[in-house]
Amino acid sequence: MSTVASAEAEIQEVVEGLLDAMRRKDVDRVMSFYAKDVVAFDAMGPLRYDGADAYRKAWEDAIGMMTDAFELERTELTVFAGDDVAVAFAVDHMQLGDEEMWLRWTAGLRRIGRAWKIVHEHGSVPMDPRSGKALTDVAP
Amino acid sequence: MSTVASAEAEIQEVVEGLLDAMRRKDVDRVMSFYAKDVVAFDAMGPLRYDGADAYRKAWEDAIGMMTDAFELERTELTVFAGDDVAVAFAVDHMQLGDEEMWLRWTAGLRRIGRAWKIVHEHGSVPMDPRSGKALTDVAP
Repeated sequence: MSTVASAEAEIQEVVEGLLDAMRRKDVDRVMSFYAKDVVAFDAMGPLRYDGADAYRKAWEDAIGMMTDAFELERTELTVFAGDDVAVAFAVDHMQLGDEEMWLRWTAGLRRIGRAWKIVHEHGSVPMDPRSGKALTDVAP
Repeated sequence: MSTVASAEAEIQEVVEGLLDAMRRKDVDRVMSFYAKDVVAFDAMGPLRYDGADAYRKAWEDAIGMMTDAFELERTELTVFAGDDVAVAFAVDHMQLGDEEMWLRWTAGLRRIGRAWKIVHEHGSVPMDPRSGKALTDVAP
C-alpha cells in the first residue's frame, strides 16, 4: 500500500472512530480526534469555535440532545491525503425520531506525531437566500 | 523558505487570485482555480455541486448578482499545507449595499502538476435550530 493509500485508510479510521464515539456519547473519545487548536465552523450556533475547550462544550450540548432515536449516517465520504495534511468531506444524514436532516461535512486533518488530528471542521446546511431559511431537507 | 512555507505562500496567492477574479467578474479566471472534479458545498442552493461544469453555472449566477455595491473581504485566513494537499479556511464579510453578511469558507486543495487547484469548497452560514433561520448576521 502506498503512503498516500495508507494515510487515506488511517483517515477513514478517524472518521469511523469519531462517529462511533459520538454514538456511544463518549465526549472524551470524541475530543481525542481533534487538535487542541481546532477551529470549527459548526452547522448550528456561533460563527466559529476556537480551540478544543470551546468546541467540547458544543459537543457536550449536542450529545446531551441525542436520544436513543438519534441516528447519523455519513455518506459519500471522500478523502484526499498527502504526507501530513488531508481533507475529508461527506454528506451526513441525521435522524432524530420523525425529523430528518441532510448536512454537509468537511474536515481538515494534520498528522501530529503518529496520529491524524482534525484541525478544522465545517458542518452546514445550505440556505435559501429568498426566505432566509436554513434548508435542512435537501436530499442529495 | 521551506517547502511548506512556500506552499502556504502559493495557496495565499490562489486565494487572492480567486478573490480578484471574482471582483473583476471574470468567470473563466474564477474557474481556473478549481479542479475539473471539484465538489462544492455552497452557502446557497443545493446540497452539493459535482464538477466544475455544474459549479460554473452557480458562479455565473452569483457574479450576475454582484452590482458595483458588492464587496467581499476574506478575513482570518488560515492555511495548512503539505507537499500535495492543503486546507485553507477563513471568515468572509460580504456587503451588498446596505445588506451585510458573514460567511464561513473552507477549501481543500491539491497540487496538480505545478499549480494548486481547489478540489473541494465549503461555504456556509450557521443556522438557528429553534427558528430554522439561516444566521447571516453573526459577526466574528
